[in-house]
Amino acid sequence: MGARHIGKQTVVFDDAPVIFGRYSIVGAKEGKGPFGMYFDEIVNDPLVGGKTWEEGESNLINKACIGAVKRAGIRQSDIDMVLGGDLLSQLMATTFGVSQFNVPFLGLYGACSTMGESLAVAGSMIAGGSADICLSVTSSHFAGAQKQFRAPLDYGEWRSLTAGYTVTGSGAVVTGKRAYAKELPWTRGRVGVAITGYTAGIITDYGIKDSSNMGAAMAPAAYKTILANLNDTSCRITDYDLVVTGDLGTCGSKIMADLLLAEGINVSDRYFDCGEKIFDEEKQDTHAGGSGCGCSASLLCGYLLKCMEEEIYRRILFVPTGALLSPVSFKEGKTIPGIAHAIMLEAVKL
Amino acid sequence: MGARHIGKQTVVFDDAPVIFGRYSIVGAKEGKGPFGMYFDEIVNDPLVGGKTWEEGESNLINKACIGAVKRAGIRQSDIDMVLGGDLLSQLMATTFGVSQFNVPFLGLYGACSTMGESLAVAGSMIAGGSADICLSVTSSHFAGAQKQFRAPLDYGEWRSLTAGYTVTGSGAVVTGKRAYAKELPWTRGRVGVAITGYTAGIITDYGIKDSSNMGAAMAPAAYKTILANLNDTSCRITDYDLVVTGDLGTCGSKIMADLLLAEGINVSDRYFDCGEKIFDEEKQDTHAGGSGCGCSASLLCGYLLKCMEEEIYRRILFVPTGALLSPVSFKEGKTIPGIAHAIMLEAVKL
Repeated sequence: MGARHIGKQTVVFDDAPVIFGRYSIVGAKEGKGPFGMYFDEIVNDPLVGGKTWEEGESNLINKACIGAVKRAGIRQSDIDMVLGGDLLSQLMATTFGVSQFNVPFLGLYGACSTMGESLAVAGSMIAGGSADICLSVTSSHFAGAQKQFRAPLDYGEWRSLTAGYTVTGSGAVVTGKRAYAKELPWTRGRVGVAITGYTAGIITDYGIKDSSNMGAAMAPAAYKTILANLNDTSCRITDYDLVVTGDLGTCGSKIMADLLLAEGINVSDRYFDCGEKIFDEEKQDTHAGGSGCGCSASLLCGYLLKCMEEEIYRRILFVPTGALLSPVSFKEGKTIPGIAHAIMLEAVKL
Repeated sequence: MGARHIGKQTVVFDDAPVIFGRYSIVGAKEGKGPFGMYFDEIVNDPLVGGKTWEEGESNLINKACIGAVKRAGIRQSDIDMVLGGDLLSQLMATTFGVSQFNVPFLGLYGACSTMGESLAVAGSMIAGGSADICLSVTSSHFAGAQKQFRAPLDYGEWRSLTAGYTVTGSGAVVTGKRAYAKELPWTRGRVGVAITGYTAGIITDYGIKDSSNMGAAMAPAAYKTILANLNDTSCRITDYDLVVTGDLGTCGSKIMADLLLAEGINVSDRYFDCGEKIFDEEKQDTHAGGSGCGCSASLLCGYLLKCMEEEIYRRILFVPTGALLSPVSFKEGKTIPGIAHAIMLEAVKL
């Protein structure tokens, strides 16, 4: 058996699947941010060649998938399953972004934790024998998200200081059996990244209702998932070179670190929140930072995996975070439950 | 390894996971239909005790999950993963329906194919070692779906003759390792149902744009998935006692059967479309029949699995079908891509 369930929430892989290819694509604002040099592609047209924001986001997904497949050195038809989703209702961006690929598709929704969920399912599918090669993808688009969750751009809505700025971007990852990595054109002797396991998130609801402070709504979920990962695996926080959360932003990441500290776990010297880092708050006026599925996905595919390939970090716990609200649930006065899935990544010689 | 990938789209399980428990719950109209006697629970209050349609749908999900866990004879904490989703944007019904369970949650979206997708992922998770016990769930609600996809009920919108009537209902299935079934209180010597494998669907788009004829939009996807299943497994259609599609309705099911017939496959003597069957068209005025995730899910959990336990049918190919449209994609003039996942079910002595 290639996978084992340990503790309450964690799955570890005996023969860990490895990442064959990755691709990141972002919009102009993200390209001008501190990580601009790491993204594979920066698109200046906010419609990404489409006629609508939604079509533009589909094009981001499409380009990210094609880029990841190309870099992996495989053919599209080698993919056994595409696993992905996005923030748009009924996964509109992903549906139209991958509909031409002619491979099985499983739609996933974990809000901004979707890249974590799709890597987790890919890992389980590959380690368990259900697939040889999977493609995980997610995206977000600033204008599409504003239109759906808040107000159309033309309204010139004021943004709260605790609000994140939705990242326009997508990340795609091709994952496969480690044994097959040797057959790829680029792997010989190179360092790659293995998914050694994951901790699946539990819906966590601390009663936050402010959709302009989603960092606060998601922070408890990230904290609980990280704690569960350490408990289930008997690891210490120092066993990871970097602990990465998705899009908690400046407010949420502080809450998350404080919650861990109350448990005696000091994450501060190895903590990286994608939302806090992706923009330059002083120059780019993004308030609490970046958010959206594309935030952690593009930084994973553009920056973090590259750092692992260069052995700057050998072990990363990647914990994208999702706020499980909808425009309807918000209007009906419901709380914003959070979820976070933790993916254990390790640099390995291929 | 507990799972094997065969052909282009199919996964088969060597040690097939079995269904530990199932529960179906529907609204009053479904309860008055021809299968009323088979459902575990019929709720006459259209709000299902909630304050909104969406809260009512969450309550359906919640009751279905609790019912399936109870019938399985396990504790809620025995579940390793909840796998589910619904038609509401950002999976609102499922999120709030399962948020109190304190077990890992993976949100899935395959429109009305979601019960197929969640059984497929559950099967792969269990057979591959990532989980011992999974809970798969989905739902739909007539009034919630009308409000979201069409017009609020108060508008008294006329329904097209090709349109399906969204089923108010939910179905939940607890699946686990076959070896564990022996430890359950109810299994001794009984006949249960195993998930022997599945064929994951490919997004199929024949260019249909009429959201009042979703049967036509989904029929090609069902046809392609059934054909792929037969090709990948080298089975003939007569190897199945029953081929079940989700919610193609009267129009879509005829298209599906015709498409198969053009390939020389006559499914007519063993074909059951849940959408076509769940209501009595003459007495209930539902036009093309039932639709929604809850349609095939409630008939699976209430009627079909019961028939298998009684060995009326020994092998069923369960193929729920999804129309991958959103209110936005429809308004923007996009096509309606379809998807269908085929689950191979077999009666087994436990």
